[in-house]
Amino acid sequence: MTAERILILGGVRSGKSRLAERLARGRGWPVTYLATATPGEDAEMRARIAVHRGRRPADWALIEEPLYLASALRAATGPECCVLVECLTLWLANLLWAGDERLLERELAELRALLPDLPGQVIFVGNETNQGIIPVDALARRYCDLAGELHQDIARHCQRALLCVAGLPLVLKGPPLAGMEGE
Amino acid sequence: MTAERILILGGVRSGKSRLAERLARGRGWPVTYLATATPGEDAEMRARIAVHRGRRPADWALIEEPLYLASALRAATGPECCVLVECLTLWLANLLWAGDERLLERELAELRALLPDLPGQVIFVGNETNQGIIPVDALARRYCDLAGELHQDIARHCQRALLCVAGLPLVLKGPPLAGMEGE
Amino acid sequence: MTAERILILGGVRSGKSRLAERLARGRGWPVTYLATATPGEDAEMRARIAVHRGRRPADWALIEEPLYLASALRAATGPECCVLVECLTLWLANLLWAGDERLLERELAELRALLPDLPGQVIFVGNETNQGIIPVDALARRYCDLAGELHQDIARHCQRALLCVAGLPLVLKGPPLAGMEGE
Repeated sequence: MTAERILILGGVRSGKSRLAERLARGRGWPVTYLATATPGEDAEMRARIAVHRGRRPADWALIEEPLYLASALRAATGPECCVLVECLTLWLANLLWAGDERLLERELAELRALLPDLPGQVIFVGNETNQGIIPVDALARRYCDLAGELHQDIARHCQRALLCVAGLPLVLKGPPLAGMEGE
Repeated sequence: MTAERILILGGVRSGKSRLAERLARGRGWPVTYLATATPGEDAEMRARIAVHRGRRPADWALIEEPLYLASALRAATGPECCVLVECLTLWLANLLWAGDERLLERELAELRALLPDLPGQVIFVGNETNQGIIPVDALARRYCDLAGELHQDIARHCQRALLCVAGLPLVLKGPPLAGMEGE
Repeated sequence: MTAERILILGGVRSGKSRLAERLARGRGWPVTYLATATPGEDAEMRARIAVHRGRRPADWALIEEPLYLASALRAATGPECCVLVECLTLWLANLLWAGDERLLERELAELRALLPDLPGQVIFVGNETNQGIIPVDALARRYCDLAGELHQDIARHCQRALLCVAGLPLVLKGPPLAGMEGE
């Protein structure tokens, strides 16, 4: 049927991942979990990834892609398929850390070009990081600028956008969510 | 009657305390103010506490408990009583600063166990600190993780959850608030 | 007709400026853009200002006033005129950096006194900076306190208050916005 793109934003431990997983399961289509985190060397990151993994149904496909998100999305999406992208802002941070300005701009442009035509259900999860004090660090400010613009671009092409606070969704765009309270 | 648990989140100077005080007064029950701040040595904290004190009705009971929140709640709550807890996130910070991992985990577990059965009206005030840039400092990241999880746990057992911005409540959970604008 | 005061808050790159510009254009009155930023020496600030300038209609009047906001508002506002103030929190930061405590207090008091009687349409844009981790730096904490109180004061005298996230407005106060999605 029609495509259904959803943006779920939220601060640290706001319940955004759980909400994304619930919406993915609720659709009833086969799910591909597109992870932009890669375990790597960092113990804290490995622990966070392990928690997410433990919670996901065993029949979900997993793709790990820290940099080339547009290509991965092109390959993974399809009619009557669900792709859950977690998370947008980590992907952006990966691109910034890679330190290749042309790669960064090309990847952002490719994702933007792809957005309007993505088929099936695509759920984007992103960190809301821009409602605190403006960072002193120039790279962090750059990150905030790019993250804010990215979230606007994605929201524009989503049928639904939500902001999670304390595990509860505020509707930014689209119809109210039913049955999301008290779970 | 039935219990009424309310979570009020908000950033710095977002009007969350005033809203909590208004909801406590509105109920018409005797109120116990359960403060997790203690004046101590810090001049800024003493000044903040003095402002809150000056605003509260003289007939409210006061309990100061920086660490053992579950015990204090068990003692202070009751049918047709209101307890206003201010604030959750300072209590969490107190526990983290105490540096005793077993105390921290025991207190969090006790509060979680107590939540579903708290009688009367209980209003929890917490700082929303998790929508800014992820802190570089590991202890601050730990604090954010714990605060986010705590707010989710509390919200799950509340009939009402609100996020204050510019003195105005966004309803995260429960019925709309009447008569809260323009005060 | 009746005065219409609007507060638009939002984090970094949340779409708050675009929304403010859209609301100003939508009213159909002559618009004065009251900028609290001045280009000065800083390349990043100059670039941000240039982006905003390039987006604004050529027939909007421009006033640049980094410190004396109340006087500038008194001069610029009028019946069937629109004044767009961008932004409140930069004005506050300018006052704090000026380092003159009496100037700061006088300016805040003057703005507060002026608010209830401002004629025409006045749109205030402010940064939401208070939902991140509490800053370690004392000046940054002072800034957050003042910004939070200022936003509350302004919201109290506005008919409409909005929080922008990912380019989408959450209604804090006033009627829903029509036709703001998907633009």
